[in-house]
Amino acid sequence: MTQRTDPAALERVLAAAAAASAPAAASTPAERAAWLTAAADALDGAAGELIATAAAETHLPPAPRLKGELARTTFQLRLFADELHDGHFLGATVDHADAAWPMGPRPDIRRMLTPIGPVLVFAASNFPFAFSVAGGDTASALAAGCPVVLKAHPGHPELSHRTGTLVHDALVAAGAPDGIFAVVHGVDTGVTALRDQRIAAAAFTGSVPGGRALFDIANSRPHPIPFYGELGSVNPVVVTPGAVAARGEEVARAYVASFTLGAGQFCTKPGLLLLPEGHGLDDTLRTAVSAVAAQPMLNERIAQGYTRAVSELRGVPGVETLAEPTQDGPEFSPALLGISGKEFLAAGTQVHQECFGPASLVVTYADAAELARLLDALEPGLTATVQGEENEAELVRGLLPALVQRAGRLLWNEWPTGVTVSWAQQHGGPYPATTAPTSTSVGTAAVERFLRPVAWQGFPDALLPDALRDANPWQLPRRTDGKR
Amino acid sequence: MTQRTDPAALERVLAAAAAASAPAAASTPAERAAWLTAAADALDGAAGELIATAAAETHLPPAPRLKGELARTTFQLRLFADELHDGHFLGATVDHADAAWPMGPRPDIRRMLTPIGPVLVFAASNFPFAFSVAGGDTASALAAGCPVVLKAHPGHPELSHRTGTLVHDALVAAGAPDGIFAVVHGVDTGVTALRDQRIAAAAFTGSVPGGRALFDIANSRPHPIPFYGELGSVNPVVVTPGAVAARGEEVARAYVASFTLGAGQFCTKPGLLLLPEGHGLDDTLRTAVSAVAAQPMLNERIAQGYTRAVSELRGVPGVETLAEPTQDGPEFSPALLGISGKEFLAAGTQVHQECFGPASLVVTYADAAELARLLDALEPGLTATVQGEENEAELVRGLLPALVQRAGRLLWNEWPTGVTVSWAQQHGGPYPATTAPTSTSVGTAAVERFLRPVAWQGFPDALLPDALRDANPWQLPRRTDGKR
Repeated sequence: MTQRTDPAALERVLAAAAAASAPAAASTPAERAAWLTAAADALDGAAGELIATAAAETHLPPAPRLKGELARTTFQLRLFADELHDGHFLGATVDHADAAWPMGPRPDIRRMLTPIGPVLVFAASNFPFAFSVAGGDTASALAAGCPVVLKAHPGHPELSHRTGTLVHDALVAAGAPDGIFAVVHGVDTGVTALRDQRIAAAAFTGSVPGGRALFDIANSRPHPIPFYGELGSVNPVVVTPGAVAARGEEVARAYVASFTLGAGQFCTKPGLLLLPEGHGLDDTLRTAVSAVAAQPMLNERIAQGYTRAVSELRGVPGVETLAEPTQDGPEFSPALLGISGKEFLAAGTQVHQECFGPASLVVTYADAAELARLLDALEPGLTATVQGEENEAELVRGLLPALVQRAGRLLWNEWPTGVTVSWAQQHGGPYPATTAPTSTSVGTAAVERFLRPVAWQGFPDALLPDALRDANPWQLPRRTDGKR
Repeated sequence: MTQRTDPAALERVLAAAAAASAPAAASTPAERAAWLTAAADALDGAAGELIATAAAETHLPPAPRLKGELARTTFQLRLFADELHDGHFLGATVDHADAAWPMGPRPDIRRMLTPIGPVLVFAASNFPFAFSVAGGDTASALAAGCPVVLKAHPGHPELSHRTGTLVHDALVAAGAPDGIFAVVHGVDTGVTALRDQRIAAAAFTGSVPGGRALFDIANSRPHPIPFYGELGSVNPVVVTPGAVAARGEEVARAYVASFTLGAGQFCTKPGLLLLPEGHGLDDTLRTAVSAVAAQPMLNERIAQGYTRAVSELRGVPGVETLAEPTQDGPEFSPALLGISGKEFLAAGTQVHQECFGPASLVVTYADAAELARLLDALEPGLTATVQGEENEAELVRGLLPALVQRAGRLLWNEWPTGVTVSWAQQHGGPYPATTAPTSTSVGTAAVERFLRPVAWQGFPDALLPDALRDANPWQLPRRTDGKR
C-alpha cells in the first residue's frame, strides 16, 4: 500500500478530489470544524500506534519529540476548527447599492473567500506528523474547504499510509465527501499530479532544489497555479557586544542547544552565529558542542547530503573548524565552523545556504559597520534572531530594518527552533525561505493560501451564498458599507 | 522625456526606489494617507490638461469617458487613504505569552503586515488613468508603503510622463521619500527592472502573451518574486430561457451596448453570449449592432490585433457572421458572430480566447445539459454573468458552482463592463484572468498584494513597531489572544 501509486490509482484520486470540490465548497464552516475535530480525535486515539511507527521509520525519539509533535498536530487541527467558528477568515464584505458613491452609482456587491479547489500537498521528511500527512498544509487546506491530495514523503511511508487512512475515514465519518483526502506515493506521482489541471494549488515543505523544481513545474503549466513552497533558511543569530558582556556563555550554550536540537533537522535551525570580534566564547562553544550526544539523521539520503554540505563548507577559504564533526556509524556529532566577517563577505554562495543537519557557522564581525554589511549580504530566511540588551536599543534599532527585510519572524533573546501554532505566528519569508512571501505555512493565517475571493453583484437574496445573505444566517462577522 | 529610459537612468530609479524602501516602510498609515490624498488633489487640479493629453494620445472621448476615468482614479487614491485610516489592513495580531497553551508554552508573539519593498507596475493601454501611472496598482502599492517604479504604456507616453511628474512631486511635497515613485519607458527597460533584485513584486495589466512572458521572467529569477498579472478574460453571459421570454430584446440590446462600450477595449467586455436555441433574437442583435457608431481603437497595434483575432474567429468551423464588421479608415463597426453549442464544444482554443475589441460570439445551447457542458468547457475569467428570472432559481443554482469556479465576480442581471471601486470589489480570477487568483487588482483588498507578514517574538515594548506596542499608539484595530 505504500509503494508508488500507479497511474490508474492516481487518476481515481484526482477524479475523486475534483468531484469532492463542489460539496466541500458547499460545506459550512461549522461542518468543516467538525471534520477537523474528528480527524484530531482519530489521531489522538491512535497515538500509541502512530508514535511507534514514526519512531521506527524516522529514528526520532518517541518522547518527548514524537509525542509532542503529535500533540502539536492535533492541537493545530483543533485551532483551525476554532478559526472556522470565528468566521473572520471568510472576509465577508457587503457593499449595498449606493447611488451617491463618488465615482458613480455603486451596485450591490458582496465579496467572500471561496475554496480554491483541490490542493496537492507535498509532505516533509523532518516532521512526520506536524508537516506531513495531517500537518499544517493539510489542516489549513481542509479548513479552507479544499480537498487534499497528499504526496507522502518516502522517509516515513507506513506512517503516512496509516495516518492517511485514519484522517480520511474520520473526515468522511464526520460528513465530508469521500474524495476529501487521499495519500499518494512516489516522486513521479507527485509531479504528474502537480501538472494535472484538476489541482488548483500546491504546498511543499522541503529543500531548495526540490521545492524550486516543483515551483517551476507549477508555473510552467498551461494554467499556472499558486505554489506555496517552504524551502530553505539559514536563520542568522546576531549577538550584540552587550549580550556577550552580560551573558555570553549562556548565549553560546543556548545557541548550541538550538542548532543541535533534533540533529539540526529543523527549517528554523540557526545556521549562522554572528559574534563580535574578541568575544572569547570559542571554548564555551566547543565544550557545549562536545557535550551533545551523537544523533542519527532522519534517513541515509539526508545524512549523505549533510556530510557533503559540511565538507563543502569546510573547503571555503577562511573557514576554520571550531569543533570537529565525527560520525559513529549512523550517528553524527555536531560540526561547528568559524569564519571572519571579512572572509564571509568574500566567500561564495556556500556560506549562504542552509546546511540541513547539526552544523553551524560562527561569523565574527569587526564592528557595527561590518555587522551592517553582513546583514545586508545575507539571504532572506524564515527567521532572524537578536541576542541583545535593552540598553543597546540604538544599536538594535539600526539592525532591525535589514532583518525585517530578510525574515518572516524576528526573535529577541529567544531561539528560532520553537515554532508555536497561534494566531500571530508567521512561518515564511522572501525567497528562498518561501516561494510565496505574502503567506504563512504555520498559524491560523495559513488558511488564506487556499481561499480565492469571489464577488457577487446584483444577486437576489435567495441566490446569494448564505455567508452574504441579508439575514446573515451564519452570524458571520462582516464588513458592511465599509463599517466593521 | 518619454523615450526609452536609458540604463543609467533606470539604475538611478532603482537605486532611489531601494533607498526609499526603509523610510516608506517606517511611515505611518496616516502619513501615507496624506501622500495619497496629495496625489489625488494634484491630479484633480490638472484635470483639464491631463484629459486633453489623454484624448490626443488614446482616441478616447474627453467626456464622459476620460473625465469619468480621472474621477475614478482620484477617488481610488482617496479610498485607499481612508483604508489606511481604518487600519485593519495591517492585520495587527498580539498573542501574549501563555504558559498554559495546549501544545506547550507560547511565547509572546506579535504579527503585522509589512511593505514588501519596491514594486514594479506595468501600466495598461486601455485605461490611461485608472490602470496606468496613478492607477489601482500604484495606489495599492503606495498604500502598502512600497516605492513604485512605473513602466509606462507606449500608447500614452506624454500623459504617462506628465502624470508621473505630478504624482511624484505631490508625494514628495507631502513628505514621502524622493525615490517613492518614478516612471520609466521602454519594453527592455521594464524587463531589466523586472529582473533586478531590488524589485520585490510586480503588477501588470494587459494581454495574455505579454503578461505570461513577464510572469515567466519573474518566476525564473534566481530569487522569484510575486507577479500579479491581470491578463485575459472572455466574460461569458448566460441568458436563461426565462429571461429570453420575459425581456429577451432588452437583454440583447443591453448586451450589445456592453460589448461595444469603449470599442470593446475593456478586460471585462462580455465576449460570449450563451442563448437558448430558438431564442429569436438575431434580428434584435443585428439591429442593435448596426446602430452602434464606428469607433477608433486605442492605437494601430491594438487595431491590427483585433482585425487578426476576428478573422481567425471567422475561420473556425461552424462560426457564422451575424453582423458583418466593417472598417472605415481608423474606425471599426462591431462584429457579431454565432456558433452552435455543439460546434463550440468541438472547436479549438480560438473560441476561448479574449478578442480585445468590439467583437462577440453568440453561442446557442440546446438544453440545460448542453449549457452545463459549455460552462464546464469555458476558460476561467474575471467575470461571469447570468441574465435570468428569480423564478428559475433551481436552474440558476445548478449553474452557479461552475461559474464560481471560473470567475472572480458573478453578476446577476447586470453587465460586467462597469467595475466599481469599493470594499467588496473583486477583480481577478483563476488563470488566465490573473496569475494570482487569491488576490484582486481593484478594490481596497488590492493592498494585500504588496504586504508581507512579519512576526515579532519576545521583543521588549520599546523595540516593537508602534503597531504592535502594548499601548497601541496608533489606536489600530488588533486581534489580541485570539479575540477581536
